[in-house]
Amino acid sequence: MDIATAAGLFLGAALLLISILIAPGSSLAAFVDVPSGLVVVGGAIAACGIAFPLGTLLKTPKVTMKLFFPKVPELKPTIEQLVRFAEVARRDGILALENNIEEVDDPFIKMGIQMAVDGTDGELIEAVLRGEIQAVSSRHKTGKGLMETLGRYAPAFGMIGTLMGLIIMLGNMDDPEAIGPGMAVALITTLYGAIVSNLFCLPFADKLGFYSKREMEVREIVVRGVLSIQEGDNPRVLEQKLTTMLPAAERALAL
Amino acid sequence: MDIATAAGLFLGAALLLISILIAPGSSLAAFVDVPSGLVVVGGAIAACGIAFPLGTLLKTPKVTMKLFFPKVPELKPTIEQLVRFAEVARRDGILALENNIEEVDDPFIKMGIQMAVDGTDGELIEAVLRGEIQAVSSRHKTGKGLMETLGRYAPAFGMIGTLMGLIIMLGNMDDPEAIGPGMAVALITTLYGAIVSNLFCLPFADKLGFYSKREMEVREIVVRGVLSIQEGDNPRVLEQKLTTMLPAAERALAL
Amino acid sequence: MDIATAAGLFLGAALLLISILIAPGSSLAAFVDVPSGLVVVGGAIAACGIAFPLGTLLKTPKVTMKLFFPKVPELKPTIEQLVRFAEVARRDGILALENNIEEVDDPFIKMGIQMAVDGTDGELIEAVLRGEIQAVSSRHKTGKGLMETLGRYAPAFGMIGTLMGLIIMLGNMDDPEAIGPGMAVALITTLYGAIVSNLFCLPFADKLGFYSKREMEVREIVVRGVLSIQEGDNPRVLEQKLTTMLPAAERALAL
Amino acid sequence: MDIATAAGLFLGAALLLISILIAPGSSLAAFVDVPSGLVVVGGAIAACGIAFPLGTLLKTPKVTMKLFFPKVPELKPTIEQLVRFAEVARRDGILALENNIEEVDDPFIKMGIQMAVDGTDGELIEAVLRGEIQAVSSRHKTGKGLMETLGRYAPAFGMIGTLMGLIIMLGNMDDPEAIGPGMAVALITTLYGAIVSNLFCLPFADKLGFYSKREMEVREIVVRGVLSIQEGDNPRVLEQKLTTMLPAAERALAL
Amino acid sequence: MDIATAAGLFLGAALLLISILIAPGSSLAAFVDVPSGLVVVGGAIAACGIAFPLGTLLKTPKVTMKLFFPKVPELKPTIEQLVRFAEVARRDGILALENNIEEVDDPFIKMGIQMAVDGTDGELIEAVLRGEIQAVSSRHKTGKGLMETLGRYAPAFGMIGTLMGLIIMLGNMDDPEAIGPGMAVALITTLYGAIVSNLFCLPFADKLGFYSKREMEVREIVVRGVLSIQEGDNPRVLEQKLTTMLPAAERALAL
Repeated sequence: MDIATAAGLFLGAALLLISILIAPGSSLAAFVDVPSGLVVVGGAIAACGIAFPLGTLLKTPKVTMKLFFPKVPELKPTIEQLVRFAEVARRDGILALENNIEEVDDPFIKMGIQMAVDGTDGELIEAVLRGEIQAVSSRHKTGKGLMETLGRYAPAFGMIGTLMGLIIMLGNMDDPEAIGPGMAVALITTLYGAIVSNLFCLPFADKLGFYSKREMEVREIVVRGVLSIQEGDNPRVLEQKLTTMLPAAERALAL
Repeated sequence: MDIATAAGLFLGAALLLISILIAPGSSLAAFVDVPSGLVVVGGAIAACGIAFPLGTLLKTPKVTMKLFFPKVPELKPTIEQLVRFAEVARRDGILALENNIEEVDDPFIKMGIQMAVDGTDGELIEAVLRGEIQAVSSRHKTGKGLMETLGRYAPAFGMIGTLMGLIIMLGNMDDPEAIGPGMAVALITTLYGAIVSNLFCLPFADKLGFYSKREMEVREIVVRGVLSIQEGDNPRVLEQKLTTMLPAAERALAL
Repeated sequence: MDIATAAGLFLGAALLLISILIAPGSSLAAFVDVPSGLVVVGGAIAACGIAFPLGTLLKTPKVTMKLFFPKVPELKPTIEQLVRFAEVARRDGILALENNIEEVDDPFIKMGIQMAVDGTDGELIEAVLRGEIQAVSSRHKTGKGLMETLGRYAPAFGMIGTLMGLIIMLGNMDDPEAIGPGMAVALITTLYGAIVSNLFCLPFADKLGFYSKREMEVREIVVRGVLSIQEGDNPRVLEQKLTTMLPAAERALAL
Repeated sequence: MDIATAAGLFLGAALLLISILIAPGSSLAAFVDVPSGLVVVGGAIAACGIAFPLGTLLKTPKVTMKLFFPKVPELKPTIEQLVRFAEVARRDGILALENNIEEVDDPFIKMGIQMAVDGTDGELIEAVLRGEIQAVSSRHKTGKGLMETLGRYAPAFGMIGTLMGLIIMLGNMDDPEAIGPGMAVALITTLYGAIVSNLFCLPFADKLGFYSKREMEVREIVVRGVLSIQEGDNPRVLEQKLTTMLPAAERALAL
Repeated sequence: MDIATAAGLFLGAALLLISILIAPGSSLAAFVDVPSGLVVVGGAIAACGIAFPLGTLLKTPKVTMKLFFPKVPELKPTIEQLVRFAEVARRDGILALENNIEEVDDPFIKMGIQMAVDGTDGELIEAVLRGEIQAVSSRHKTGKGLMETLGRYAPAFGMIGTLMGLIIMLGNMDDPEAIGPGMAVALITTLYGAIVSNLFCLPFADKLGFYSKREMEVREIVVRGVLSIQEGDNPRVLEQKLTTMLPAAERALAL
């Protein structure tokens, strides 16, 4: 589980809640307004419904889940596995990997090794794997783009809601007592829009970008590894090659 | 028909309407002002009239239609058709495709196959088809750009209308009773501008971008397919090649 | 003449004028303030005077003229002329084109054909013509940039004028009667800035960009045509080559 | 120590403090509000917690330290050292450098020379060193990005805090006396957000970018130097080559 | 001297001054507030002190000087000089240029010719000259970036000053008479920030960009010229080559 995402959300929500509760003359009830919430969240979802294909929208819950339970493969075990496979292929021939395919969890690595065992041509393996990487990367970009778009439309509909509230209030100024509370309600949509955008959507989009970049790095290493195995490269040389692709944090250990 | 576009528009409009109707002291009449609508929509159209060539402007209704009834070719049937043609060309010679041209609906594929049957040089076929792709892509970009430009000028003219309303109101402050309603009317143009931009133009531009990207992917596959047919490639190899270009969702089925 | 530019300007100005005249309690006089106009337009021009070289500024009237009377060469007649020249060169030798040079209006085509007739080396012809294209493109970009810069500084000086008006008004609050009119006058500069930017400068910059792109396309076709003529290419092949470069609208006719 | 960073911070803080203290009717107490500070700083940190991986967040203090005590290697001594090593390698063979490795402080240079002494293949040395450069550059970009993100969320949470303050104030307008102070407190979060962003985070991000660019330049020179040494280049030629990579300020001395 | 810079500054300042003086109820004194100026200008300088290395900051006066007294070399005399040198080198050998070096003012051309006379290898000459161009270009970019950064922070500190003024004013609302003047003073920092940014820093940055681009063009021509001289090219061919690199304005004369 991604502790930073959960902790950040908890910290942000707690800060806002506490500062509402400790403020003199304030109450939580003054900040809860269901129609305002519907205009901001519903409006942003409606705009995204127009902006995105239906299929993308329906994947939103799955994308959000990923923020808390990311499935980013580890780099070092992946490299170790590939090096081990290279040793088997070198020693017993590439067909011997048939028995190892079962132990692979990652469907991407499985697909690559299976093609190598099947005697598929190296160029075609690379084309298929890179096509898969591109497809996943484009799916990630769409997920990130959805969050950014929600984060752009939420404040816009917050402003639309506030304008609507102001117009209603300004048209009914007979009772001066009602001006203050009317304006307070009008401002709630702007507040909701700012919170939805800055505490949820935009940071979500940023983190999705990080996970995507990480996954692409691992997959790139797998492509090079599978091709080396298929070509029967020396496992030592393969290990060195892949290690040069490790990001800084992990490299310190490797060198 | 694109259900997401229609549903998003319906949801957004319904949300705004309902929140106007349920608000205490509010009425739909307070939100309808024809001159305000003319300033915002007319002003944005005027600015786009200056910004874009006349021909582009006249295509706006057709572009808008596309949002509800998109004509994006399906990937899988296209690939199957190309593979079938490759089989015919392999078996009976490329001239045998003459009889199949009639069954092709897509004018782009038709043009490519026709050139191949006519014995046109491979390089020229590629140049003509890629030129066509570029032309379509540039036409799509202009359509998307028009929506983005409308979405940029609508809020600008909303602000211009509000400033004009404020100047009129501030110059006639003899009657304090009139200040509130005057300001309410002044704010309506800003509200209109925000709605036109965030519920219509900007999401429209986003979806046009999605459709365009999709269409370009299909056309790219067609170019490679036609060139393979013209060169007499093996239909199996062609199928593999084209399948590596399928986006993620469809690939799961293919592999 | 570019009808869209003129019609857009007329429509935009008419809309603003009419909505001022029909508003109750409003008069055109309330919207005319010469010092405000001087601050916005003069300030934006002053900022552009600092931002741009003198030579560029002095070309502003000529650039503006271009928006109403564009001089974009037609694509199809240009291609036909080049194909005709290729036929002459094929039939009677390249020197025979000497007699045709007189009938060429476009100085760019003239320069290219003249160099071909003079027996200039193909590489040098290409370098000179591409250098000329780059020079024109960079001049166009500067013209467009000037309009964008004016469109950026006009609202800025509008805001500066409004701030100045507010400071004067807030320092003289003895007469409550004068507050409304004082603020109305202060807001006029912001209104002027928004109109100058959104009805004039920014749409002007967009259209200049369209014209420039169009002109570059035609010139690119001319370069390829002149080089083909100089190399003695087959006029039919030349026609096919140039036709693949036609944008979509015109292509429909060509194919 | 980086004097400009410290002096800038001191100057900025002093200016704001003094202008608070000399303003008539003002007191420092009016500008201190702990809950406001918590909303702005805590909210920005919460958003960054969601946006960034945990590991990056924990490096924030180290990154901030770097702004005051940068560890950017000097260019000229680095070049001199590399030229000296090239002389040793030329004279006594590359193995003779074994004894010089101890005197190298920079672990990056050490790693390169060690690989050269070990007889590692030139291509692999380049791949490892460039991989290291990329890893460091990507780490720097993340550090800079964290500062930019903080600088983007701080004003957003400042606005959220102000909206919350306004809503509380507008809901309690029974006591007209309390309106002014209530609004003053509401504005404090916006002020805090603007200061955190414009005096700390955004300038910090800019300077981190400068240091990173500088470090990459030095490392690029080291890569070329180590490869030249490994290939046994003439020390004079190496010196000339590396000198052409010196930035302007240092070049003046070198030429 | 750059007349446009001086005239623009004069025009902008005069417009603002006059519109202050002719406004009824206004006086210049109402717009002068030393602490406000210190917050805006001092704050922007403090932020730039943190954002930029010390060395860059100290060059600000020199960079500003350049806006009024630019030192951009003329294109045509430079080309004539290079062609003349090519003739000498052709006629009397490259060593004969030794006598001409004295008459060269531009240190960049001097360096290039000196290296050619010294018999330096062509590739090394190009590397050294291009390194120098890159170094100058990067120095120019930093100077431009400094102006842009000042232009970004000045309005930010203007807003910070206004917020501070508003908080002080709102905390002291006992005297209703003081509200107007208090707010007027608070707005002065925003006004100062807008003027500093839009009349000084941002246009300055734009013009620095123009000068830099111009200088790079001339230097690129010098590099090609010196290499041609070193290779003993025909002076006529050299003239043609360099002329193709002339920008549009000067080309009209050359062709």
